[in-house]
Parts: sequence; structure tokens; C-alpha cells
Amino acid sequence: MLNTYYTAMLSEKDIIFEIFQASQEKARKIGAEHVYDFSLGNPSVPAPSIVNDTIISQTESLDALSLHGYSPGMGQPEARAAIARHLSDRFGLPYQTDHIFMTLGAAGALAHALRAVTNPGDEIITFAPCFSEYKPYTAGASLKLSIVPANTDNFQIHFDAFLEMLNPSVSAVLINSPNNPSGIVYSAETLDRLSDILMQKSEEYGHPIYLISDEPYRDIVFDGVDNPYVARHYRDTLTCYSFSKSLSLPGERIGYLAVRPDCVGAKQIIDICPQISRTIGQNGPASLMQHTISRVCGRTSDLSVYEKNKNLLYDALLSYGYDCVEPGGTFYMFPRSLESDSVAFCKKAQEKNLMLVPGDIFGCPGHFRIAYCVPTERIQKSLPIFKELAREYGISGR
Amino acid sequence: MLNTYYTAMLSEKDIIFEIFQASQEKARKIGAEHVYDFSLGNPSVPAPSIVNDTIISQTESLDALSLHGYSPGMGQPEARAAIARHLSDRFGLPYQTDHIFMTLGAAGALAHALRAVTNPGDEIITFAPCFSEYKPYTAGASLKLSIVPANTDNFQIHFDAFLEMLNPSVSAVLINSPNNPSGIVYSAETLDRLSDILMQKSEEYGHPIYLISDEPYRDIVFDGVDNPYVARHYRDTLTCYSFSKSLSLPGERIGYLAVRPDCVGAKQIIDICPQISRTIGQNGPASLMQHTISRVCGRTSDLSVYEKNKNLLYDALLSYGYDCVEPGGTFYMFPRSLESDSVAFCKKAQEKNLMLVPGDIFGCPGHFRIAYCVPTERIQKSLPIFKELAREYGISGR
Repeated sequence: MLNTYYTAMLSEKDIIFEIFQASQEKARKIGAEHVYDFSLGNPSVPAPSIVNDTIISQTESLDALSLHGYSPGMGQPEARAAIARHLSDRFGLPYQTDHIFMTLGAAGALAHALRAVTNPGDEIITFAPCFSEYKPYTAGASLKLSIVPANTDNFQIHFDAFLEMLNPSVSAVLINSPNNPSGIVYSAETLDRLSDILMQKSEEYGHPIYLISDEPYRDIVFDGVDNPYVARHYRDTLTCYSFSKSLSLPGERIGYLAVRPDCVGAKQIIDICPQISRTIGQNGPASLMQHTISRVCGRTSDLSVYEKNKNLLYDALLSYGYDCVEPGGTFYMFPRSLESDSVAFCKKAQEKNLMLVPGDIFGCPGHFRIAYCVPTERIQKSLPIFKELAREYGISGR
Repeated sequence: MLNTYYTAMLSEKDIIFEIFQASQEKARKIGAEHVYDFSLGNPSVPAPSIVNDTIISQTESLDALSLHGYSPGMGQPEARAAIARHLSDRFGLPYQTDHIFMTLGAAGALAHALRAVTNPGDEIITFAPCFSEYKPYTAGASLKLSIVPANTDNFQIHFDAFLEMLNPSVSAVLINSPNNPSGIVYSAETLDRLSDILMQKSEEYGHPIYLISDEPYRDIVFDGVDNPYVARHYRDTLTCYSFSKSLSLPGERIGYLAVRPDCVGAKQIIDICPQISRTIGQNGPASLMQHTISRVCGRTSDLSVYEKNKNLLYDALLSYGYDCVEPGGTFYMFPRSLESDSVAFCKKAQEKNLMLVPGDIFGCPGHFRIAYCVPTERIQKSLPIFKELAREYGISGR
């Protein structure tokens, strides 16, 4: 009589985890230095020293009960205020403490956003390629997830397909820019067109269509790339952020949900978030982490290695004859696979100890994801293997 | 089009929070020293110094990426192993790492336990008086919660009522001993009788009835009170624990779910827990807290003040003519209110700046909860007011 839904999830393969396990297995057999694991999106640079300094100084100086005591349901007011200040200074929208809800990373923010602006049975639209966890996230909120096919030319939005799929049961649209897995940043033009459509359809359907913007990679954007702040382009926007990638704190599970101040129902959305928490067993991020974030919000790790890695890898892949849209941010790249079956392609790469993730799980077969959040030296050493792989497919580069 | 269910929750009054707010309001007006706030179950003693020492030493010594990096879905193996060792040494059941799942406190443990061993629409039975949050916890898992009326003689289980309510749609029974709000510890006799009934009915219905044991107060038990370990009394037991009360870390959100090793489906229950996490936006407790717990598991704060407070308050209340079952643990007491309408009684107490919680929200009207996790001096100063209140009701003590 165990839960049948969750039991069924067990038998679906978790492909990224399987690749990671295969990688560990290979490392045991042939030595870790011979395996090129590009499967996991785990930051490879340390948190800036101010993070650990703050953890230690807070632990040493705060009164025991405020340090480890319960936080209010919406999060510590100091952390919420610091985030509101940071967002309004940086993006020019008048966020106040009341517009911020502290969460367990972006996953926690999405769990609240997805439940707040929908009712069970509603539809959510997102765009391929997209993060594979959107499926369980929406299923857990009893929502129907529809995925607009990818615009593989540039991984901006495929608007014709989107317009065909929009219908009155859609309560929210979910986007992720900079994007996992493509590394693409949505342009201001893309966001403006999306906004126009959502405004028009909200009016036509007689209810707001909310825009849920999943932004854990907001701060990893490469030189010269314009990274428009999504909420500036559409009023009814809920922004989901995580400090996992920008501060290299993925295990500490801290982030926030920010509602644009003039969003329809802004106050009520934040008010109901703690009610949602009560039904899904959450009580906000760890107290010590909230104390820390309220003092380091706006800082980042040294993220420059990701751009260095991107340049090295992207230039090399192009010269070997791979076809890839150049990432504008994140630590992912999403080239076309050298045969149309990307699962078969990734298996072939795996035989050469290159651990890549097929695009199928991101709703975009025919591509593969490289997570290049690894030491640059690992990228360098992997290049001859990418080259050899291309040659075996009969592809010659420049 | 905001969520109607969560919006409706907003209009239900959160009585404990309202009392706490009234208390803050009074404190502003007349000074905090004149308000006796017994509304919140927030530990009043600091974490033992080994906790902060460990937080600091881990932060200083661990490699940045292991310190703050992602933990596996089930939690850090070191923390799980330390907990399994602690439980098997202490209670003589052969727990292994594989039987432990790390959670966001007891709320997170219950969120997983309640979803793992049920299917939507199933029924859960619990016993009054019970923690008021069991309603949203079960509602969030789409379960029907039935509450067996209290046995107000001693707050052990009202077995006749329980037997009448048991039926084949019951997948699990939820207990909480030591109990919030009564402070009562279930006796070995109670647990054995419960176990006999569950075994018999599991056989009769042809499916296991799981016992979910919510034990955040396990370590706060008073001198001479027998505190049987629930899972020793029934095979199919899921134990939900939190370090919030025993280590005074409520804000850090760390606890675990332990499945008795020979429980039906033990391995599968733990295996599906990370799948559940994926649908409710959780990814386990903060990494730094897991590192810390793996080194301090089994330690507690100096919990002796709670017993001191209990003795002082209990003896005084009895001498003033109050009727109360003596708590065996926790930091709660649940006397009979001096009029049958406990909401009216608590209002009257509130006029005298005594902040108490009516038993109605715990499924047991006619009683009130005192949370005596406050400095002993506050208890002492409040005694004349309890005495005066009894006199006004025409009750004279010894």
C-alpha cells in the first residue's frame, strides 16, 4: 500500500544520476584522471571568503536563541529587506520587504510560486529545452505541464508554437533564462514579445497569466551579453532565485521568491506562501543561512572560470565541426549531437570516457548537454576526445 | 485566479499566532516584563556549546565544495550513519544508514512519511489532543485526517473510540509521545495495546497499517518517567525526529525519518523519499547542519530547566485548585480550563496578561496549553496571576 505514484517514479530512470554513477564506476576502474565527467551542474568554485567569515562571526556573536531560533514563516525580516534593497537598487523596481519570501533554493521558490498562482488541474507552459525537474515540480502541485518545442536556431522562444498552445486553462508560463541546459539568455526582444502576448491573452481570457521566472543563473552571464531582468518586462512576474550558483552554496538550500510590486495580487501571493509551506513540510531555509545572506546578499563567488571554460570549449568544438548555439551565461552548453539519436551519441561518447547528458530529458532530442563547471585543465584534457569523436562520425572541422 | 485552497487558509485564524501578536502588542504598551507569554513552543535554553564549536570548526576546516555542496537526495551518508548508530546503540534495533532519511525537521519527516505509506484519499487516524499542524500536513498529502477524542482522564489513548473509527481506508496511525500539548508520555501498556490492535487490523484488512511516530520531544522526559521507544513496540513504524527541541535548533530545520529495519517495505519507503522531495520542493537540510549533526548526534542542550519549570508550575496550579494531568515530558502542560468554554477562559486570562492557548485547536476543548519553555523567573512571577484567576472563578485550592 505504498504510494503508487512515487513508486512508479522509482522505475523511471534518472538519466543524469545514472551517468554520474557510470562515471564514478569508471573512475574506480581506470582512475578519475581518465574520466571526463560533464554530467552534473555543481559549482566548481568556492564560496567567497566573506560567506564563511560571516557564518563564523554570526555563530560567535549572535545570542543563541536568535542564531538558531525559529524564523518567521516568511523568513527573517533582515534577509528579506536586504534582498528587496538589492533588487530595487539593481533593477529599479520598488521591491520592499513585503515582496520577498525566503525559500529553500530555487526548488523551494518554484514549489511556492507554482502553487500560489494556480489551482489543481491548471496548465503551465514552459519552453524546451528546459530543466528536467519541472516535471515533478508541476506534478506535485497537480498541474499539467506543456512544453513548447525548442527553437533550435537560437534557443529563443518558438512563438508560433507557443501561440498555438496557449489556452484559457493556462495560469502561468515558466521560463528559465539564463537557461539550463542551453546557456542561452533571452533577449529583451524575446521578453517584450512574450510580455505582449501574455498581456493580450490575459485580457482575452479574463484572468492574469503569471510569468514564473526561474533565475538561479542570473549572475553567471558572459562578457558583452545583455541579460535583461525578466520582471522589468512583464508586470505579473514571480521571480525565483537561488544563491546556489552565484555564491556556490547549493547544499545550503537558500533562495527567495520575489513578486513584482505591482503584480496582480502581489500582497496575497506572499501572504499565502507560508500557508503553502504548512502543507509541504517546509519552514524556510536554515536560520544561520538567513542571517548570513542578510549580510552578503549581492556578493558572488569568482565566476570568471565559467566564461574561460566556455570560450575554450566552444571555440574548440566549433573548430572540430560541432554545431552549437553560443551560451550567453550559466555553465552549460547544448551542442547538436553528431547523430540524431542523442542517447546513442552520448553512449558512444561514454565509451571514450566523456560523460555527457542527452537532450531528450530536457525536451530537446538531437542535442547533448555539457556541464563545464569543472577545473579548466579538465576541459583542456578532454578536447582531443571531442575531436576524435567528431572524426569517427566523419566530421571534419576547420 | 490565485489558489483558492491556500487563500481560504488565510481567513482561518491562526490562533497561536494571534495570541503571540496580542502578546507583542501588550509588551509594547505595558512593557514586556508585565506580559506572561506562554503561547509558543520555542526552546528557551541555548544549544550546547559543542554545536557552535562544530559549526565553526567545520566551516574552517572542510573543503569549500564539500562544506556547501549538494548533499545526496537521502542526506549525507555520515549523518545518516551517525543517527543509525545512535538509534541502534540506544534502542537495540539494528538500524543501518539505509534506514535513515535526512529531513527538514519533524515537519519535513512527516511530509515524507505521510506521502510514502499512503495514496491520495486514504485516511490517517490520530489522537486528541494533537498538534494543530497535523491538519495542513495531511491535507497537503490529500489525506483525510480523523481525530480520536481525548481520554481526558490521563491523555493515554481512548481505545474504544479508536476501535470504532478504524476501517480499511486507514493506511496509517499518527501518534506524538511525549505529547504536544499535554506533555503526556504514552506508557508501554498503551503502546502494546495499540500494537496488538494494529497487527490484528492489518491482517483483517489485508494491508499494513503503518504507525507514524512524531517524536520531537523524545529527549525531554522527566525524572522517573518511563519513555518507551515507540518503534520497539510495533514493527511497521516510521519514526519522525527533529533536533529542534533536544538541541535547541528549531530554526535550522534538521531532523530525520527512521524506518524500523524489519518494517514492511522498509527499503522502498526510504528509496521513494527523495522522489517525494522532488515534488514538494525540498532537497534536504542545509549541508553545514548535516555536517554538524553527524558530529553531535546524541548530545542535547541542558534540558533540566523544563522539569524545574514543570514542577514549580504544576505544584502551584494544583494548590490553586486547577485540574491537570501531570506531564511526563516536553515543555507543555494542558490543564482543564476553569469554564467549559476554553476560548472564553483564555480571553479572560489574556486580560490579566497571561497568554495561554485554548485546547480547541488541539482537538480538545475545555483545556488550555501552557508552553513553559521560558525562564523560571517568569513562571514564578506569573503564579499570583494564575491564583487570582482561579479565585475569580470561585475556585479555592489547598
